[in-house]
Amino acid sequence: MIVVMKIGASDAQLNQVCSKGEEMGFKPHVIYGKERNVVGLVGLGKSEMGIIEDMEGVDRVLPITKPYKLASKEVKKEYTTVDVSGVQFGGEEITVIAGPCAVESEEQIVKSAQYVKAAGAKMLRGGAFKPRTSPYSFQGLGEEGLKYLSQAREETGLPFTTEVVNPRDVDLVYKYTDMFQVGARNIQNFALLTLLGQTDKPVLLKRGMATTIDEFLMAAEYILSEGNKNVVLCERGIRTFETATRNTLDISCIPVVKERSHLPIIIDPSHAAGHWHYVPALSKAAIAVGADGLIVEVHPDPENALSDGAQSLNPDEFIKMMGQIRTVALSVGKHM
Amino acid sequence: MIVVMKIGASDAQLNQVCSKGEEMGFKPHVIYGKERNVVGLVGLGKSEMGIIEDMEGVDRVLPITKPYKLASKEVKKEYTTVDVSGVQFGGEEITVIAGPCAVESEEQIVKSAQYVKAAGAKMLRGGAFKPRTSPYSFQGLGEEGLKYLSQAREETGLPFTTEVVNPRDVDLVYKYTDMFQVGARNIQNFALLTLLGQTDKPVLLKRGMATTIDEFLMAAEYILSEGNKNVVLCERGIRTFETATRNTLDISCIPVVKERSHLPIIIDPSHAAGHWHYVPALSKAAIAVGADGLIVEVHPDPENALSDGAQSLNPDEFIKMMGQIRTVALSVGKHM
Amino acid sequence: MIVVMKIGASDAQLNQVCSKGEEMGFKPHVIYGKERNVVGLVGLGKSEMGIIEDMEGVDRVLPITKPYKLASKEVKKEYTTVDVSGVQFGGEEITVIAGPCAVESEEQIVKSAQYVKAAGAKMLRGGAFKPRTSPYSFQGLGEEGLKYLSQAREETGLPFTTEVVNPRDVDLVYKYTDMFQVGARNIQNFALLTLLGQTDKPVLLKRGMATTIDEFLMAAEYILSEGNKNVVLCERGIRTFETATRNTLDISCIPVVKERSHLPIIIDPSHAAGHWHYVPALSKAAIAVGADGLIVEVHPDPENALSDGAQSLNPDEFIKMMGQIRTVALSVGKHM
Amino acid sequence: MIVVMKIGASDAQLNQVCSKGEEMGFKPHVIYGKERNVVGLVGLGKSEMGIIEDMEGVDRVLPITKPYKLASKEVKKEYTTVDVSGVQFGGEEITVIAGPCAVESEEQIVKSAQYVKAAGAKMLRGGAFKPRTSPYSFQGLGEEGLKYLSQAREETGLPFTTEVVNPRDVDLVYKYTDMFQVGARNIQNFALLTLLGQTDKPVLLKRGMATTIDEFLMAAEYILSEGNKNVVLCERGIRTFETATRNTLDISCIPVVKERSHLPIIIDPSHAAGHWHYVPALSKAAIAVGADGLIVEVHPDPENALSDGAQSLNPDEFIKMMGQIRTVALSVGKHM
Repeated sequence: MIVVMKIGASDAQLNQVCSKGEEMGFKPHVIYGKERNVVGLVGLGKSEMGIIEDMEGVDRVLPITKPYKLASKEVKKEYTTVDVSGVQFGGEEITVIAGPCAVESEEQIVKSAQYVKAAGAKMLRGGAFKPRTSPYSFQGLGEEGLKYLSQAREETGLPFTTEVVNPRDVDLVYKYTDMFQVGARNIQNFALLTLLGQTDKPVLLKRGMATTIDEFLMAAEYILSEGNKNVVLCERGIRTFETATRNTLDISCIPVVKERSHLPIIIDPSHAAGHWHYVPALSKAAIAVGADGLIVEVHPDPENALSDGAQSLNPDEFIKMMGQIRTVALSVGKHM
Repeated sequence: MIVVMKIGASDAQLNQVCSKGEEMGFKPHVIYGKERNVVGLVGLGKSEMGIIEDMEGVDRVLPITKPYKLASKEVKKEYTTVDVSGVQFGGEEITVIAGPCAVESEEQIVKSAQYVKAAGAKMLRGGAFKPRTSPYSFQGLGEEGLKYLSQAREETGLPFTTEVVNPRDVDLVYKYTDMFQVGARNIQNFALLTLLGQTDKPVLLKRGMATTIDEFLMAAEYILSEGNKNVVLCERGIRTFETATRNTLDISCIPVVKERSHLPIIIDPSHAAGHWHYVPALSKAAIAVGADGLIVEVHPDPENALSDGAQSLNPDEFIKMMGQIRTVALSVGKHM
Repeated sequence: MIVVMKIGASDAQLNQVCSKGEEMGFKPHVIYGKERNVVGLVGLGKSEMGIIEDMEGVDRVLPITKPYKLASKEVKKEYTTVDVSGVQFGGEEITVIAGPCAVESEEQIVKSAQYVKAAGAKMLRGGAFKPRTSPYSFQGLGEEGLKYLSQAREETGLPFTTEVVNPRDVDLVYKYTDMFQVGARNIQNFALLTLLGQTDKPVLLKRGMATTIDEFLMAAEYILSEGNKNVVLCERGIRTFETATRNTLDISCIPVVKERSHLPIIIDPSHAAGHWHYVPALSKAAIAVGADGLIVEVHPDPENALSDGAQSLNPDEFIKMMGQIRTVALSVGKHM
Repeated sequence: MIVVMKIGASDAQLNQVCSKGEEMGFKPHVIYGKERNVVGLVGLGKSEMGIIEDMEGVDRVLPITKPYKLASKEVKKEYTTVDVSGVQFGGEEITVIAGPCAVESEEQIVKSAQYVKAAGAKMLRGGAFKPRTSPYSFQGLGEEGLKYLSQAREETGLPFTTEVVNPRDVDLVYKYTDMFQVGARNIQNFALLTLLGQTDKPVLLKRGMATTIDEFLMAAEYILSEGNKNVVLCERGIRTFETATRNTLDISCIPVVKERSHLPIIIDPSHAAGHWHYVPALSKAAIAVGADGLIVEVHPDPENALSDGAQSLNPDEFIKMMGQIRTVALSVGKHM
């Protein structure tokens, strides 16, 4: 870490910083400046830089080490491709996951799977365990929902991803799913992340609505550090002062993640927008900016959906949109 | 809900909105304006207002009903007092919880308890299960930590609150704690909230860093709606663009919650500030604005703390601060 | 406006709201609900809805009327095309404005103009009056800069846009420029907006970093309401908690503005990103999402630029990027 | 500045950074780390650190120098007291400015002055030039308003502060006012700040709603660097995702500014809250946290105010509040 001393800090204060740094396991290295001095603390000492920050004569402390290693492109330079039951994330193919917010019935999810497959989606989505802001809202069908998803997979051949919200359910969901989904609200549910890191199934990890990109990669690190290397990231909008959309899609997250990490990343335009009529435009932007794929809410009958109907495309709109993004994919050297 | 039609929307579009509303279980009621018309949909119909929002000719839909009931002051007009093993939250007494971020050893927590009791704190805090942003940071002592906390309680008589992060640990923590603590990262861990709502021990519920006040009260509703009426809220800072402090303490949250809800609410100045030297000023502001108490990080030796050392007061500073806030409490008609 | 009464509000309180509404020039219209009542106040009364919001028995007040008219698509349904000395904004052609942040010398701006014209840009940008966060930074060449810009226009035929920051300079800038530019910091400099509305030259209006989309359209309304109909909007990123990019490009702003307003809108990826290597990806996203054009920082020698060098493309990268976005434009049915 | 190299950056890349640094006028100083190297660039070179940030092998660049000098407590260690026609800001006395948002008539402002003086306010506020989000709202009385303010001063002896929004009006406002007020929307209206720095009257500088504390101090630096040392800062809330209050009062701004700067700072609870009934609680918090004073909106008849009625206290509430904050002031060792 770099310790910036105050203008006019005394030699004694500088020496105390050096001593404290040594005590914490660092090797101090002073740079004498015209206006103020700076101490580099080299090595892998105790990480609590706040302690130094609060010493007399210290203006600020700047961290040098990135908190994530396994997720970092500095450590692994080649981009990772994640395989989910034969479907690839990363590389030159754009992969689209589609389906309803929640599994509502066998018929609904099988129909959804058939529609989205016909339109070109490679994977199905559908929630069996729903985290809802209100305790009075529909909370999902649970294991029954997982069975319907499996039925849909059998009939269409589409692998599926589904959310797990409780560490207790990891084993249950494991039995059915092709890919775990971690929702935005659970980005720092470390108990859950750790357990998922101990399984051998891929994880779709959604960014939280107040999570910085570095914290997002730290959450991925929780999974990677337990041994599970198959993490696909998902940008789904952050919370800002703007209320015209449900969240603010942070489209720049894609080039930033591509620079800092080797992990594949897709975009969820449905949760970002909160209104289905903005979804096609945002999907085109997602492909153009370099995302590896999309996860889109599609419902056979959005007006009667039990959750998120307003942000779900109906099958016709989804087919139309898939045609549009196929062309955009070609224009940036990818295909679908 | 109120449906605002577009300027120039046709009669047919207006009629479709009314029909759809009726279909969803509402009674439509049209207000004809000079510039545009408005439809009131009265009653308790299906709540997916997004569906109506996306109909032709509709400009916007405005919700009328608040999503929380049991947490609302409209429903219960008298302020609630929560009793935690004889310590009160709510009313004219300011209650201070203090202690280290994490339990590190029996000696550390017993000493902490003695110090904070001597200074006037009524409850002890200390984490046995720590949610950490990095998988490589100290994660807490687990059940051993709970035993040390109990030991500290035995020696000082101070009840304690400690965080539970995993639904799986609720039974274990229940055996030891006087009050569950739900951290900011778990504000929408609904599986955890539901389980805590089924216990008979009080819950200290911290606001998430991107949680609106209404969502905060919704999270409380999850606990209340399961039957546990003993919820104490805690404002601990929200995430904004400002980086001078770790979070931005939303001090206005106190008068807003006091207007909307009957639940007691305290402030955590330590996590809001992120630097111990801002804690006394923020604590004084917290008491002056009308908070029912504080939860403050105090460590017998902050420079060697295993977590959050930079934001922990040492015992001397804590004693000094307690004297100051006692005077501020008197100035607003309360006591400690 | 719609007045939502509290649960249990008395008849007297309801009547007071109706009387107050009438006094303010509205016609009150009560909707009796199961749980609570609602009052519609119809007509064009005094706009201070806060007064009603603070009356006894009132829970909330919801506005119905949009604050902007002339900028609204409800009022003017066809999209507007703005002509700047023969260059069009709006319609099926993507228009790219490019050039350095600041005019530094005649040679620099003439060279820049030649480079960006060769790459396909239709307009030149360059600041003569620079608003800088620090009083110690380069503040621009003033009128000399305007002369150099005119020289560059003469040599290349490219019209230019340049920022005006002071109402006092409007007349001076008018003499030279083809299009006024209003920077993000001046989005609510109403004195400036009013003066620009009284001229007959087009205005490029940049969104402020904490401006909602509705406030952005209100700022446009200031110009339109003075008689100047030639406003081109520009999204350039908003301020959020994320620090990986200089600002967070709000890409969703494009489909939202296209739904609410008839005005053309372009994107500034350079200020949003703050790093030139993110600019090509964001530019492709901008075209794909439906923006009418781009304004991009290009400098003949970014490493020695007097401002914003880090976010400026060099001519080679700009040429390469222009080729890429041309393909993306075609993929969404537009051309360059 | 400190240049952090990437893990695995080559020696050649390190050398290029050193050379570039020298070329820019710095003295390079390499610290060799276990994992990565760091280059300190010492001295006062060219400030564009983005150029270095974009070089090959560079991970990040960290600034060392604070961008403000004259506003900094590092440079001037004693707190500044600003005198406004005999009224002091800074020191042990709490100074309250009060009055209506806008001057509406001679009677209204004279009455306001009498009321607020009777309650203990030391200065009057009132807007003659109003920046309004909508071009259709009341824009203020202009010079007529300034005359009424002067009349109120004559009758009560209270000096006044009034907003100036246009550089063109600085001379005019100078003739009447005791203290210029710069509103939140003009925090980066550098033309205005520069002109005010050239006058000899004190300036009340309000923080912008998306302005960091460091940018706030930079705006003060604009005024100070022109020679005017009489700047009083004012925190009035920042824009966040929370909508329960008009803005989010950043109460922590006070201890942070007190640490970084010697300038006095007051709080505007009225604009922060947006509702008068939150104002007393926030005012008490402001005094307790260490602010040097308050600026509060008070109107003789808030229900009929031409602007900001909802956030204005009536005279009775203001008197009551003044009594409360007097007690809080005593509790923190100050007086009113």
